[in-house]
Amino acid sequence: MQAFVMNGVGETRMTEKERPQPGPNDAILKPTVALICTSDVHTVHGAIGERENLTLGHEAVGVVDEVGSEVERFSEGDRAVVGAITPEWGSAAAQDGHPSQSGGQLGGWKFANEKDGVFAEYAHVNEADANLAHIPDGVTDEEAVYVCDMLSTGFAGAENAAIPMGGTVAVFAQGPVGLMATKGARLQGAGRVIAVESVPERQELAREYGADEIVDFEAVDPVERIHELTDGEGVDAAIEALGSEETLADCVAVTKPGGTVSNVGYYGEGGTVDIPREAWGVGMAEKDIVTDLCPGGSVRLGRLLRLIEAGRVDPTKMTTHEFDFENIEEAFELMASKEDGVIKPLVRF
Amino acid sequence: MQAFVMNGVGETRMTEKERPQPGPNDAILKPTVALICTSDVHTVHGAIGERENLTLGHEAVGVVDEVGSEVERFSEGDRAVVGAITPEWGSAAAQDGHPSQSGGQLGGWKFANEKDGVFAEYAHVNEADANLAHIPDGVTDEEAVYVCDMLSTGFAGAENAAIPMGGTVAVFAQGPVGLMATKGARLQGAGRVIAVESVPERQELAREYGADEIVDFEAVDPVERIHELTDGEGVDAAIEALGSEETLADCVAVTKPGGTVSNVGYYGEGGTVDIPREAWGVGMAEKDIVTDLCPGGSVRLGRLLRLIEAGRVDPTKMTTHEFDFENIEEAFELMASKEDGVIKPLVRF
Amino acid sequence: MQAFVMNGVGETRMTEKERPQPGPNDAILKPTVALICTSDVHTVHGAIGERENLTLGHEAVGVVDEVGSEVERFSEGDRAVVGAITPEWGSAAAQDGHPSQSGGQLGGWKFANEKDGVFAEYAHVNEADANLAHIPDGVTDEEAVYVCDMLSTGFAGAENAAIPMGGTVAVFAQGPVGLMATKGARLQGAGRVIAVESVPERQELAREYGADEIVDFEAVDPVERIHELTDGEGVDAAIEALGSEETLADCVAVTKPGGTVSNVGYYGEGGTVDIPREAWGVGMAEKDIVTDLCPGGSVRLGRLLRLIEAGRVDPTKMTTHEFDFENIEEAFELMASKEDGVIKPLVRF
Amino acid sequence: MQAFVMNGVGETRMTEKERPQPGPNDAILKPTVALICTSDVHTVHGAIGERENLTLGHEAVGVVDEVGSEVERFSEGDRAVVGAITPEWGSAAAQDGHPSQSGGQLGGWKFANEKDGVFAEYAHVNEADANLAHIPDGVTDEEAVYVCDMLSTGFAGAENAAIPMGGTVAVFAQGPVGLMATKGARLQGAGRVIAVESVPERQELAREYGADEIVDFEAVDPVERIHELTDGEGVDAAIEALGSEETLADCVAVTKPGGTVSNVGYYGEGGTVDIPREAWGVGMAEKDIVTDLCPGGSVRLGRLLRLIEAGRVDPTKMTTHEFDFENIEEAFELMASKEDGVIKPLVRF
Repeated sequence: MQAFVMNGVGETRMTEKERPQPGPNDAILKPTVALICTSDVHTVHGAIGERENLTLGHEAVGVVDEVGSEVERFSEGDRAVVGAITPEWGSAAAQDGHPSQSGGQLGGWKFANEKDGVFAEYAHVNEADANLAHIPDGVTDEEAVYVCDMLSTGFAGAENAAIPMGGTVAVFAQGPVGLMATKGARLQGAGRVIAVESVPERQELAREYGADEIVDFEAVDPVERIHELTDGEGVDAAIEALGSEETLADCVAVTKPGGTVSNVGYYGEGGTVDIPREAWGVGMAEKDIVTDLCPGGSVRLGRLLRLIEAGRVDPTKMTTHEFDFENIEEAFELMASKEDGVIKPLVRF
Repeated sequence: MQAFVMNGVGETRMTEKERPQPGPNDAILKPTVALICTSDVHTVHGAIGERENLTLGHEAVGVVDEVGSEVERFSEGDRAVVGAITPEWGSAAAQDGHPSQSGGQLGGWKFANEKDGVFAEYAHVNEADANLAHIPDGVTDEEAVYVCDMLSTGFAGAENAAIPMGGTVAVFAQGPVGLMATKGARLQGAGRVIAVESVPERQELAREYGADEIVDFEAVDPVERIHELTDGEGVDAAIEALGSEETLADCVAVTKPGGTVSNVGYYGEGGTVDIPREAWGVGMAEKDIVTDLCPGGSVRLGRLLRLIEAGRVDPTKMTTHEFDFENIEEAFELMASKEDGVIKPLVRF
Repeated sequence: MQAFVMNGVGETRMTEKERPQPGPNDAILKPTVALICTSDVHTVHGAIGERENLTLGHEAVGVVDEVGSEVERFSEGDRAVVGAITPEWGSAAAQDGHPSQSGGQLGGWKFANEKDGVFAEYAHVNEADANLAHIPDGVTDEEAVYVCDMLSTGFAGAENAAIPMGGTVAVFAQGPVGLMATKGARLQGAGRVIAVESVPERQELAREYGADEIVDFEAVDPVERIHELTDGEGVDAAIEALGSEETLADCVAVTKPGGTVSNVGYYGEGGTVDIPREAWGVGMAEKDIVTDLCPGGSVRLGRLLRLIEAGRVDPTKMTTHEFDFENIEEAFELMASKEDGVIKPLVRF
Repeated sequence: MQAFVMNGVGETRMTEKERPQPGPNDAILKPTVALICTSDVHTVHGAIGERENLTLGHEAVGVVDEVGSEVERFSEGDRAVVGAITPEWGSAAAQDGHPSQSGGQLGGWKFANEKDGVFAEYAHVNEADANLAHIPDGVTDEEAVYVCDMLSTGFAGAENAAIPMGGTVAVFAQGPVGLMATKGARLQGAGRVIAVESVPERQELAREYGADEIVDFEAVDPVERIHELTDGEGVDAAIEALGSEETLADCVAVTKPGGTVSNVGYYGEGGTVDIPREAWGVGMAEKDIVTDLCPGGSVRLGRLLRLIEAGRVDPTKMTTHEFDFENIEEAFELMASKEDGVIKPLVRF
């Protein structure tokens, strides 16, 4: 089968691989539609180290091609979506309520990390009954593919933020995860959502997804501006959706004492991530810093699909470009360049 | 009345002041016994900036000397203890469940910060009905004075750590707050408490308060050692009871993915507090960092007194020295020097 | 001043009373607009026992007429709304996070229960700084008056229901509290809201407030129907917004194991409230039953006002009738009769 | 192999059965020590309906005899304990944090309910990696067998009770689950534990496990007495460890507004379980009623074993009688009769 792989840092290519085989609890999915993630680009650039002949990609929907002997909920031919994170549900971390950390730190992240990803004609899904979800008839593949990571991660940023009903939230960065954090904050009952972003197209989408105020950090100091907007009080919660030390510091600074800083950013470099000491109340201001890795699982995926089906969120506004699988390299180049107003490039198989 | 004041950074003296007057909701407490806190020493050294003629001290028990017109639960002559933190209970932060942050960041901390402290013949207590607690007959003043701050803060470190029943906990630093975090971890159901400390007297007390293992950070690398002790898994929770960037980094490093870092340390210097990026799972390992400022309030104080009364904890093991009020300056010098095995010096009025 | 009072069970009348006086922490509010609540009708019919010459009413906005010496956030002439529940914020229950229970069971409920209510030319507000909220310019009195009770109680029903993002919720009864529970479920991220109601006007409003499905319990068995709608799984949460034993039983029956039954109904009669044993999993199905009394406080009120100001909810759709204060008796009769499609009658002063 | 089975309501016998075979994720355990549970007796008497030739028993430790192809953590010959509840960890309920409800209401309860139990020479364990735990060398089989159900269920009663540090707790009934709830309340930081029990031997054990006060419900009205002991306030939490409607009513009555009623009782009869309306605050006193079915899983079992190993709890005090497997029928008769001061009869294979 054809697979789009990373072969050493900075090197990608289309190659021929053997179709994977399912174990008793697994399934083989034949992708129909996939999305490219900024983290795919980071991976190629070496963020998780060297990898040889590793198939890329972790956001895909498709059709079940084969199932293992113990799989009960899926059969060949079923339309299905698989989470970007595919936990081992019996693991110690999953028993403790942290399935994304199953088998070790970030251990639920298997696609294009511990094993081949989804940019291939066939992809292997571990624990298929728990990691795949059926796609309702009323949801298209192009919509459903957003639940793999963008909705799950962005919404988790909002869910973990402990937003009080009617509370104020600042969401830093309006890439696809930040946009979904903005939407997620609305779905969690925020009374005022302040989106921090400088790119006009992203500002526009942020408004469509529910931001009440836009703070352009290139035009104003976002910390000052957010304090102004909140009469000096600060926000109930801030969401970091970028993975930059500076942005995290701003999150801490704009959050009121007793508020929550919810991180869904991936910090790609540096030895430490530095928290501003005084703004953090010298460690005693009850500004908790909580983090998450994209939640997976059939139940999570099913509920996110229901939100799309019920019209609560239309993720396709984020699809700015489309490519055929054979041209996926172009899609990577676009995602790396961040040019042409790209938010998410969609890939068709 | 006599009061022991700070008058500019580095300067302390006994001086004459006017006895405070209560507003309608307040009381005047006449201290009988007090404790000196490391943070008193920090304050004198400038940690919270310049202060003029500010009475020091925030840990005291005594006798109610006068109450305001609206006070209902206390009368002249009542034995009572007042929390180190005396929130405004109707404030926005208190309504939100963060009374220690009432009126602004760390705003519940009034004694020896926003107003005169308790090292005086009389001390003013705001919102007396909610901030004082009656002392049961079975509890001595010398025991009760520990609930003001040491038990409340140390136990909060354990309570916030979300320790699973039978879980593993590492407590970094076994000063009085750390010792009470160790005891608190036991009272919260920890199955294994690992105390990190190098001073032999403190190691000994840590064992008495329930530590199962002692890690001497001067003899071994505590991160390596704790991973060894936990078969490479890390602990369910780590408690920072010192206020050092290095120790916080160690806490992050020894905590398993999905675990909790609970901070009760006060970070006294530096522009930032730095978190180790990789050990923190590049921001996605679900290692939450939670913080607290000593919880106050009559309900909290009452429950802590009950633990003493019921024999669950004997805080007086931490009282290493005693002084009369007129000699309080000597007590400060001892606390500053950390000599003679000092843990807590008690002051009698 | 004129006041509309209950004088023995079943007896109401307009009468002359002395204007109340504020204590140091209190304020006097001059109502401009009020709402009549079903519970006012229950009170008149004896639900909380005999009362003599007690002013009725607990939902009002108005203008601050006078403040006590310790009040800081309000001045004469301020537009303000007061919660139906006015806690004592320093009480033991409030310190424990249950302000509505301050001073004893349901003790935060003072208006028209422990003291005179708001159906008078002037009303006394205890702890004014914490129990009043300023009304933003963009919110009318006719909108603001809904935050006193209807939004606060209805939304609490949804907030306590622990609705997972995209989860399914059944809301039993679509009176004003139920309608706001329906709206609240949407604001809390529900993916599917099933409203149980038989009155066409209320069904219609339920749809406007966000119900995805309506179950008419007079046409079908609601338990069967909800199981059908959820493929036999049951809902993640059920909200009881009526106060009927039968409805609570249905809530238990339609909630999946591990789900939540959130009660905001007031059970007005009978010695016991009976839970169906088998549907409750013989006490082991992890179907928690949680309850609430309308949350009060300036912070809560302020956040609810923000939701109105931001256009997230328009409560005025529930105002079916209007009366002048002098005709308030007619409003009571209408509310008691439930005729003419009444949902909420508004009273102008 | 020999198995002790129920064959119709009221009928038990020793019989010959085929040794079970493991699927790919399963293991076969050869029991060494088991305990008889009151619920085994209920089962025989028809509590869960008719069963034919069903092997009884759900509390056992033993030696792993065989493992399926996918099992990684266990090998033939390992000493291991299996939980009474053996969830399917990938199920929807488990993903939602309720593994004991996996596959339907109480669906994690498989032994002696959905499949053969452990009173046999060999027992089948589903999802062995997640449902078995290794027994540390420092823990005997006779100790370890208590983590299957008694410690897990009793402690859960305390964990779910949301006991504040130093809070007051009432535990109704001091059978083995109640005794472990008493111990659990102590391990969760309760400042005062009130045990309700009339049998002298159980009262004595309750004291040994940490009860501060004993209330003999045959000598006094427990509701009155507990209100007296708490100065009329009621307790922060009450734990129902019997499964009687009357006891649950008492739990509701003694719990303060805002407190928690934690149920681990199994209600074996009647159409409804009735809650006292007024004591429950007419549904608005914020007295939540939470329930649980014995938590299972290797992580849970491992932490409970650690508490035994560390000497925090000695469960063997509850072992009042011992029997060989061939005499298990006698043990059943004893458990049914509740004679001879029986608490737990242990069975040796």
